[in-house]
Amino acid sequence: MQWIDGSITSVKGFKASGVACGLKKNDQLDLALIVSEKLASAAGVFTKNRVKGHSLQLTMKRIEKGQARVLIINSGNANACVGETGVTDAKTLASLVASKIDCKPDNVLVGSTGVIGQPLNMQALRGGIEKAVSQLSSDTDAGHMAEKAILTTDLISKEAVVRFPIGEQMVTVAGMAKGSGMIHPNMATMIGVIATDCAVSQPLLATILNRVTNRTFNRVSVDGETSVCDMVIAMANGLSGAGTIQKETAEADKLEKAIEMVCTRLARLIAADGEGATKLVEVRAEGLRSQEDAFKMVTAIAKSPLVKTALFGEDANWGRILTAAGYSGAEFDPERIDIYIGKLKVCENGTALAFDEARAKAILEEKEILIRLILKEGDAWDRMWTCDFSYDYVKINGSYRT
Amino acid sequence: MQWIDGSITSVKGFKASGVACGLKKNDQLDLALIVSEKLASAAGVFTKNRVKGHSLQLTMKRIEKGQARVLIINSGNANACVGETGVTDAKTLASLVASKIDCKPDNVLVGSTGVIGQPLNMQALRGGIEKAVSQLSSDTDAGHMAEKAILTTDLISKEAVVRFPIGEQMVTVAGMAKGSGMIHPNMATMIGVIATDCAVSQPLLATILNRVTNRTFNRVSVDGETSVCDMVIAMANGLSGAGTIQKETAEADKLEKAIEMVCTRLARLIAADGEGATKLVEVRAEGLRSQEDAFKMVTAIAKSPLVKTALFGEDANWGRILTAAGYSGAEFDPERIDIYIGKLKVCENGTALAFDEARAKAILEEKEILIRLILKEGDAWDRMWTCDFSYDYVKINGSYRT
Repeated sequence: MQWIDGSITSVKGFKASGVACGLKKNDQLDLALIVSEKLASAAGVFTKNRVKGHSLQLTMKRIEKGQARVLIINSGNANACVGETGVTDAKTLASLVASKIDCKPDNVLVGSTGVIGQPLNMQALRGGIEKAVSQLSSDTDAGHMAEKAILTTDLISKEAVVRFPIGEQMVTVAGMAKGSGMIHPNMATMIGVIATDCAVSQPLLATILNRVTNRTFNRVSVDGETSVCDMVIAMANGLSGAGTIQKETAEADKLEKAIEMVCTRLARLIAADGEGATKLVEVRAEGLRSQEDAFKMVTAIAKSPLVKTALFGEDANWGRILTAAGYSGAEFDPERIDIYIGKLKVCENGTALAFDEARAKAILEEKEILIRLILKEGDAWDRMWTCDFSYDYVKINGSYRT
Repeated sequence: MQWIDGSITSVKGFKASGVACGLKKNDQLDLALIVSEKLASAAGVFTKNRVKGHSLQLTMKRIEKGQARVLIINSGNANACVGETGVTDAKTLASLVASKIDCKPDNVLVGSTGVIGQPLNMQALRGGIEKAVSQLSSDTDAGHMAEKAILTTDLISKEAVVRFPIGEQMVTVAGMAKGSGMIHPNMATMIGVIATDCAVSQPLLATILNRVTNRTFNRVSVDGETSVCDMVIAMANGLSGAGTIQKETAEADKLEKAIEMVCTRLARLIAADGEGATKLVEVRAEGLRSQEDAFKMVTAIAKSPLVKTALFGEDANWGRILTAAGYSGAEFDPERIDIYIGKLKVCENGTALAFDEARAKAILEEKEILIRLILKEGDAWDRMWTCDFSYDYVKINGSYRT
């Protein structure tokens, strides 16, 4: 496994582009196009929100066939909650792209992210599609542009590329994502795209994507919110030349590991780039009776506004961490829990320890912080990535729509 | 039913005091004492947090007998997570008070609220108890002082008094509460005290307190947090002279209504005084299949940082309200939901309406805002009181401990 400095177009047979068509202000990139030379196996994971955007609903349906060639994603507008118009607009977007690159509309997937409740500006998008098709390229920069075009309140690009051998051939897995606010398991306002030139059967690709999403994107919480437009799409076009992976073999493990490396990096970037975040925080709970309990515990802590504001204030307020564990619903004996901030033990058997406040402060000033809860109930564990909660989260979200 | 301008001492046979003993800085009041002349029926509702403060655990145990004469509450320190010291300290506090007012230690209840993980300053408390006993009084002001002494980050006092006749006699119900942050159903960092001179059997008092708490204090969310020290205690000393209420009669209904009026006012004051709050917000969901669904829906919306920051920004971002409803877990058809902000309908059948933004802005500039979600699934409804989420919440909680 080798990290590559690249983009989605580092994968054989994938072209991309990112253009500005006027959905966002100030000529910002707002339309991304990703095209595989050849029909690819495709799988997706979608928001669990009962309310679903119109573009997302179209993509959910189309991906049932297990294949796709094109993914078109706009930012600036979620195409959600606008009624029949939204349904028609999503289909029109796909058809417009299909007509320009000689592909069936059924093989075009659509994603939209941004404000809810406003119809798409289709005139702008017609022009945008024209431009995006004309700029399709396999240059690394074209991939970078596509990634930038799906961002909303994100401050940093989120891309990751890994390369590894299968037999004589090199296989590449590349990912790109957006996500900053409205981020919580299942699935938050995130869009993720994983492209690979590996040849893999569609059912296996779907299984791997589900498992990896569960361990990576579903372990990120910025603000506890789950949005209506969130999806992770994987496309595998098989152009690496390596033989097709059909079953759970050693090659399948390699592919899964590569996808997990890519998704882990993207997930951590999403947490670190949480709206207003100044720190990346990993919350781990170990020694629980079941993974469900561990998940409940890390989720409650990662969501707690009091824990997150204390982290922003660089205050080793472990009482809030223990409090959140206590109301998480996880089964545990509060008199048999230890808490660590970094390597510093601050609470033993549920009771305060006299610790060095200066050392705690130094740990909390770091850009990355690990919080660990060690229990003695069993062997199960889980973790979640999150960020602190700052003035800027309030600022960004107090006036997003206007 | 008549609102009275008074305090906990407006109830016959109750004395109170509030003093500063040095647990809080700058000579702020931090120790409250409430004493009934006569042994009273007593009932309590306690935090559902798995972690529980030492004072609270003592009170939970003592109240099992159904009677009490004294309630002593300190602020500035939660007496939680300090091990055996905390257990001993809680008992010592009760014994010290008991010895000074000729009462059994078993009839003294103890409450503590404030920072977790630091032992109580018992020396300060010994002096404080001496002072508090010497200042016990039935003056209205003594009740006000007691109320001030239980506050932590609260900015306003929370008191309510109601008077009503039973037969020839007038009965009084008075309440006082604290609560500002770490506020969420079951039970949040709140302490509530309800005192009445009504004569009522203990089991009925307990039943009424449970029901009313569920409709009032359990319908408040400031930040989704549930603390380790939270309790509502009711004491009924029977000194009004009216006959004892034994069963669910018309008199019982009157008493329940009076307690509910008092607790509703306190609950709304807690939401309005949420840390950093600029607005009191009531979220109502109507027309659901079950109350559980309605509760899930109002809870998700009242907890949503995105909804609450939009309210702070006075932005009619109903997409976030619908999104929170969508991930709440409530069963509903997203294409049959209407949303109102005040009297303004902003979403119909899950789809955007063109509404007057200026009018929406005017509604959102008010100090009290009603958000309603109208569904067509059934007859069940629920509501929750909350507040907006401002810079000041982050400021207050970024540096609470230090």
